[in-house]
Amino acid sequence: MALVPAAARRWRRLLVLCAAVLGAVGAPQPPNIVLLLMDDMGWGDLGVNGEPSRETPNLDRMAAEGTLLPNFYAANPLCSPSRAALLTGRLPIRSGFYTTNGHARNAYTPQEVVGGVPDTELLLPALLRRAGYASKIVGKWHLGHRPPFHPLRHGFDEWFGSPGCHFGPYDNRARPNIPVYRDWEMVGRFYEEFPIDLKTGEANLTQIYLEEALDFIKRQQSRRRPFFLYWAVDATHAPVYASRPYLGSSLRGLYGDAVREIDDSVGKILQLLRGPGVHGDTFVFFTSDNGAALVSAPRQGGSNGPFLCGKQTTFEGGMREPAIAWWPGHVPAGQVSRQLGSVMDLFTTSLALAGLEPPSDREVDGLDLLPALLQGRLVHRPIFYYRGNTLMAVTVGQYKAHFWTWTNSWEEFKKGIDFCPGQNVSGVTTHTQEEHTRLPLIFHLGRDPGERFPLSLASAEYRAALRTVVPVVQRHQDALVPGEPQLNVCDPAAMNWAPPGCEKLGKCLVPPPSAPEKCSWPH
Amino acid sequence: MALVPAAARRWRRLLVLCAAVLGAVGAPQPPNIVLLLMDDMGWGDLGVNGEPSRETPNLDRMAAEGTLLPNFYAANPLCSPSRAALLTGRLPIRSGFYTTNGHARNAYTPQEVVGGVPDTELLLPALLRRAGYASKIVGKWHLGHRPPFHPLRHGFDEWFGSPGCHFGPYDNRARPNIPVYRDWEMVGRFYEEFPIDLKTGEANLTQIYLEEALDFIKRQQSRRRPFFLYWAVDATHAPVYASRPYLGSSLRGLYGDAVREIDDSVGKILQLLRGPGVHGDTFVFFTSDNGAALVSAPRQGGSNGPFLCGKQTTFEGGMREPAIAWWPGHVPAGQVSRQLGSVMDLFTTSLALAGLEPPSDREVDGLDLLPALLQGRLVHRPIFYYRGNTLMAVTVGQYKAHFWTWTNSWEEFKKGIDFCPGQNVSGVTTHTQEEHTRLPLIFHLGRDPGERFPLSLASAEYRAALRTVVPVVQRHQDALVPGEPQLNVCDPAAMNWAPPGCEKLGKCLVPPPSAPEKCSWPH
Repeated sequence: MALVPAAARRWRRLLVLCAAVLGAVGAPQPPNIVLLLMDDMGWGDLGVNGEPSRETPNLDRMAAEGTLLPNFYAANPLCSPSRAALLTGRLPIRSGFYTTNGHARNAYTPQEVVGGVPDTELLLPALLRRAGYASKIVGKWHLGHRPPFHPLRHGFDEWFGSPGCHFGPYDNRARPNIPVYRDWEMVGRFYEEFPIDLKTGEANLTQIYLEEALDFIKRQQSRRRPFFLYWAVDATHAPVYASRPYLGSSLRGLYGDAVREIDDSVGKILQLLRGPGVHGDTFVFFTSDNGAALVSAPRQGGSNGPFLCGKQTTFEGGMREPAIAWWPGHVPAGQVSRQLGSVMDLFTTSLALAGLEPPSDREVDGLDLLPALLQGRLVHRPIFYYRGNTLMAVTVGQYKAHFWTWTNSWEEFKKGIDFCPGQNVSGVTTHTQEEHTRLPLIFHLGRDPGERFPLSLASAEYRAALRTVVPVVQRHQDALVPGEPQLNVCDPAAMNWAPPGCEKLGKCLVPPPSAPEKCSWPH
Repeated sequence: MALVPAAARRWRRLLVLCAAVLGAVGAPQPPNIVLLLMDDMGWGDLGVNGEPSRETPNLDRMAAEGTLLPNFYAANPLCSPSRAALLTGRLPIRSGFYTTNGHARNAYTPQEVVGGVPDTELLLPALLRRAGYASKIVGKWHLGHRPPFHPLRHGFDEWFGSPGCHFGPYDNRARPNIPVYRDWEMVGRFYEEFPIDLKTGEANLTQIYLEEALDFIKRQQSRRRPFFLYWAVDATHAPVYASRPYLGSSLRGLYGDAVREIDDSVGKILQLLRGPGVHGDTFVFFTSDNGAALVSAPRQGGSNGPFLCGKQTTFEGGMREPAIAWWPGHVPAGQVSRQLGSVMDLFTTSLALAGLEPPSDREVDGLDLLPALLQGRLVHRPIFYYRGNTLMAVTVGQYKAHFWTWTNSWEEFKKGIDFCPGQNVSGVTTHTQEEHTRLPLIFHLGRDPGERFPLSLASAEYRAALRTVVPVVQRHQDALVPGEPQLNVCDPAAMNWAPPGCEKLGKCLVPPPSAPEKCSWPH
């Protein structure tokens, strides 16, 4: 990100201020922004991306009314870092959402983790507030569950949802159940006030999250303010769930039931946005935080279509995401954009929609996608694939170079933990960490999206691709200043024993003594 | 197929006769029929089926204007038997398009094969002629290259194309180059009058085949007869080719260039059919003869999307095909049909469109798809997967049961012949012929389209699926009368040494002495 002179920054602030004032007296306001972020949903789970049962008519319609981005990526093959990247526009290595506890290890924010989003990070809702936006997060936060990391401390005006995954049930002795918050305070816990039946897969959480979204959108009508809704539902993350009317509705089993319920819900949100009850028009983007969790397939995991492996890996199946941009009258209908995109672009694009510039005092990795979406102007940019602080791979144009290959350890694999079930590319889907930093494995993603046929090291094409890739990586690594790692330290006392609001509910638990230690990250 | 009483048959013949007479004096005629049959194109090669580069805008538009069938199957994982099944409406085991030379062996019609389509088979163009249709085959015939098997002897009025694959070049001593026919006579040979540059992949055959199609359609306008066009292009079969303007046009390499040229050509055919230059409306169906040849990927082979393995195998990747039905004003636009379909259905459906009944003196396996396409009425039917005379698998509803698993032998695999590159499902993608006839491997294709997770033999679901599958197979096998196998005997004297017309061209070659022997079918 080029540095912006101070005078220009002041001018821009003035403009924003004017925009806010004008907005208040009825001038055209910037569009509302809705980011629909799925949890562990795979590229191949959408009909429009070739899911054979084709059970996503609303998402397919969203694509027909908008633009499909088949080359869109998560910022990490795991949830927390990818979500941090979306809201900060920055690679997890910059924001601290990584671990140095082991080489090339994925890390996230389980209950015992001490860290979370640092105060030094600027989050999208806090920036959008400067342009007059009201903002709400519905669903999973995952950027830290301790009080300093609360989403309302980082720019959101409202929250309904949970700080972490809906794992459980727990006994509230060794481990508390995960709290569900409304705004500043807990209103209950999963498996208690918010039941999930692990046997049948029944839970009505998606319906609650849908109502929260519709209610928030409707309330903005009277306020006549632009709004930002971050709808981060989690029904497709194991333990997968759906509400009763959807159970058994899919040919794909429970996972498909969850997808159908989300697809219907997206249809209802878009229907509301199409109608007269919403002030101003709305930019909507649909994507997912990382690839389908094939380790849980088929009952608890989705599909990455033709791509290799899934969640936890830096193969395409781990980070290539379903992606649809929808903004009727602006984003052309029925188009496909070849732009290499990233969830981090949603940060920069949202700022652009609001008439804001990204922060100029730090590196921002997200691109403004509007030139690609509105004018078909593609921007050349690399995609970096990290595990922890290790750069595993990079895509430049059609070429993807792997500097390290790893799925998981033999030890984990022998326990039945398989990130690539039914797939095995010799020398690629390795169970030992294989270094290729000097002579990376290179794939042509156009001819070989499934990463099955590495280019011959002796070929002219390999040498030409290497010449393209090396300087891109060199520049990236030379300029990189990693943030303070947030995901190294775990402590049983850090868990959700007594979240704010627990007193009123009589649901405060007594934490054990503090015993910080290095978190264990097996993958 | 239920037997039809003789009186009913006579009545139907009278009706057909009346229809023909009425047609001649200007009454509404049945629709024209165009079958677009691809060669080794895979399910995953279409943008609408999730090919990530999305380079098939014309086929995607065809799907948007018509109905997509994601559950449509070839009748065999290899070309000749599948094509014989399309034109006869019958499984290859009935028409003789199989071998008994080895267990579970795929066989086709190379130059040295002696057999071909028997005179006892009734082919679609011969039947459509009874309803007044003019018919043409453009491209690959593959139902036998010796004179008795000539397509004009089996009902076609016109032919431009070749009897077999465009393999070569040959030296015309050990083996002649494959002839290209116009109607009854050869007009040249591949690599001679019809060049294919194996180095660059350049050949203008798709352009010739396109012109042949457009010319035929235009000529029917003045004749005011319904027509049947069977457009069997072969650019996506190795050696893959494209004409110069398309070379390098695809992100997918040469294979993608061939797909782009075909996609553009389909666009031109549909554009002509949409326009005023065509008498009557036209039913168009797009599909392929078998799965993508992953053994030749990525330069010479396509994609089977999320499905397992490819051509030559009875996994989904070998037989699940791209399929689009297009008939504006009749087949609803933008629909997806869950009907389990087969290329054999194109026989029966075409007869139904022409107002004809399928032959009642033999088993016909093809269904009339019109109830599914026009009224959304799904017909319960099984899909049988054969290699040679061995029933390898069956799909009933969502359940697929494998009675035999095999990819190819260790001997062939060690030579580098891999039908499942990058895929390996333990106990499923076997390199020995594994029998499971008593306890088949069963997959749920809705939850697990990639055939990665066999149901547990101990599960109630397995037992219920088995109870569904067994009687279907029992009925099929009890009633089955295999035809005389056509693909057992090979003879160097049977090759295309002196096809009709060779004298005029001065291109007759002298055949070697006849030396019939058992054909060798390694897979």
